[in-house]
Amino acid sequence: FCSQAPIRATLFPGDGIGPEIADSVKEVFNAADVPIEWEEHYVGTEIDPRTQSFLTWESLESVRRNRVGLKGPMATPIGKGHRSLNLTLRKELNLYANVRPCYSLPGYKTRYDDVDLITIRENTEGEYSGLEHQVVRGVVESLKIITRQASLRVAEYAFHYAKTHGRQRVSAIHKANIMQKTDGLFLKCCREVAEKYPEITYEEVVIDNCCMMLVKNPALFDVLVMPNLYGDIISDLCAGLIGGLGLTPSCNIGEGGIALAEAVHGSAPDIAGKNLANPTALLLSSVMMLRHLNLTDKATRIQDAIINTIAEGKYRTADLGGSSTTSEFTKAICDHL
Amino acid sequence: FCSQAPIRATLFPGDGIGPEIADSVKEVFNAADVPIEWEEHYVGTEIDPRTQSFLTWESLESVRRNRVGLKGPMATPIGKGHRSLNLTLRKELNLYANVRPCYSLPGYKTRYDDVDLITIRENTEGEYSGLEHQVVRGVVESLKIITRQASLRVAEYAFHYAKTHGRQRVSAIHKANIMQKTDGLFLKCCREVAEKYPEITYEEVVIDNCCMMLVKNPALFDVLVMPNLYGDIISDLCAGLIGGLGLTPSCNIGEGGIALAEAVHGSAPDIAGKNLANPTALLLSSVMMLRHLNLTDKATRIQDAIINTIAEGKYRTADLGGSSTTSEFTKAICDHL
Ligand SMILES: CC(C)[C@H](C(=O)O)[C@@H](O)C(=O)O
Ligand SMILES: CC(C)[C@H](C(=O)O)[C@@H](O)C(=O)O
Repeated sequence: FCSQAPIRATLFPGDGIGPEIADSVKEVFNAADVPIEWEEHYVGTEIDPRTQSFLTWESLESVRRNRVGLKGPMATPIGKGHRSLNLTLRKELNLYANVRPCYSLPGYKTRYDDVDLITIRENTEGEYSGLEHQVVRGVVESLKIITRQASLRVAEYAFHYAKTHGRQRVSAIHKANIMQKTDGLFLKCCREVAEKYPEITYEEVVIDNCCMMLVKNPALFDVLVMPNLYGDIISDLCAGLIGGLGLTPSCNIGEGGIALAEAVHGSAPDIAGKNLANPTALLLSSVMMLRHLNLTDKATRIQDAIINTIAEGKYRTADLGGSSTTSEFTKAICDHL
Repeated sequence: FCSQAPIRATLFPGDGIGPEIADSVKEVFNAADVPIEWEEHYVGTEIDPRTQSFLTWESLESVRRNRVGLKGPMATPIGKGHRSLNLTLRKELNLYANVRPCYSLPGYKTRYDDVDLITIRENTEGEYSGLEHQVVRGVVESLKIITRQASLRVAEYAFHYAKTHGRQRVSAIHKANIMQKTDGLFLKCCREVAEKYPEITYEEVVIDNCCMMLVKNPALFDVLVMPNLYGDIISDLCAGLIGGLGLTPSCNIGEGGIALAEAVHGSAPDIAGKNLANPTALLLSSVMMLRHLNLTDKATRIQDAIINTIAEGKYRTADLGGSSTTSEFTKAICDHL
């Protein structure tokens, strides 16, 4: 690998603790000799008219060109006339599937052992259409849009993921007993795709029941695929099972093989710049990026080092009950490589 | 009480295990000398054109007249041209708030101790509008409707509940960062009502974050109020924390003081008629009905008997890991009275 030309990848360090945890990734990648050359992009301070948001057109072009990137937390500035940074990225880059693996970290105890779940969320439509209006005074409506194209696309991704990752079961999460047309179409698409994967068990679970079963016994599930809002909800619930968003990686998959890995936690402005942040979610996201690039050995080495450092328990950041700084924790990971 | 004229209440035993668990309530009420006279109504076998569902007009009239009722599980028959039984009840009786207390049952161990949550769900609109259509081939939309009237009404109910039940905090659950108009209106109404209750702490929590926090630490919450679908999801999640829907009561509140208490679990056709069902959810729902009727002493006595029977652990139904029949468990409760 070392003689190979480096792979260019876009890096959005993001706001708040973003730059610190991005530094942690850079350090670990250096220590592991990962052949990645970062193209760093920051969120702009003015609205870029070409994106209608604080994201610059150049930064989006960078991801489009490199086809791979890593993103820290971005706090959407408050005010009118611009689009949310996260939603702009998803829409502009057509990031249609959000993949969040959620597994118990050895040595970090929660109420749940051996959680091992993959949530795959449709990322472009549904309740996130942005279509809303006032019908008459005191009566407002939002439109949830489900299309055959986007549903087939994410279902296809989920089954393909299950097959290529040795997973046995795909559960489609829905509320088609109430939203028969929208969620019904989503299920219809999942069923169509399921037929092409006879080796994968397919089931349909109503969202309320799914949440109840997840907190009672997460082992009942394997890969979960669902429309946008349910994915938002269930992926956070699953993150809670293993300790929170500070520990869960994610990766957004776009048309044409774009992958933007992302830490989905907040920018934690209260501890920003204090060397206190936990870089685990961004590090594990960077591991997903490496796997996407087929840098499997590097990915496994780094992932093991992160997991072993947390398992050992000697170096942990404050959110995990330890007293290590971001740099100490990062160094411990490098030492484990 | 015994010399008082009995209070008439409607009873919908429902389908599947419904009649057995309704028998359990009748037995316990007899043993506790509860001054209730039941007016029993079954779901019809044909669509009643006046309700467009299998519910008869007479059964709805019974609730309207008595203003109080108890409902077992009702399985909506599959087929076209009729409305879901549960939704028909909610719409026809204008049952605008669904209240689900969720508390750990002493002696029945789950991963969570000392859960004590009240979810209050708007029950008439939101994602349950039933308004859906195909826009063009492969593109469907559902309408989520939020009104000022229904939002104020459920918010008012939640704060009033908090105040009269010695609760400290009301959390409004939403996704107004995405659905700014609909969930935004819901929050606006909650804020307006919150101002009238300065003694109650008011906060707003995004639904995804709420689910994560609930599974990490349910003690962070007290009373939760939310639009229809979030209530559906969160109330099942909360039920999961303490063991499932078989243990959680609920009560629907309608305009003009109607109260329809309800076991929200399914009709469990596989064990129906076998004397195996757990009547706890319906029994605890009947306790909510008694409290609504200000039969507080009876309510407390019965609730204590249920809780003590489960805590003692000698008589438990199979779903709780025991081997008692429905009748043995019911008898044990009567003995505890
Ligand atoms: C910040 C918010 C708009 C976003 C979402 O709702 O998708 C977040 O919760 C997420 O899951 O990435
Ligand atoms: C059966 C279903 C229509 C219903 C709902 O979605 O409201 C149920 O889940 C409930 O919570 O009462």
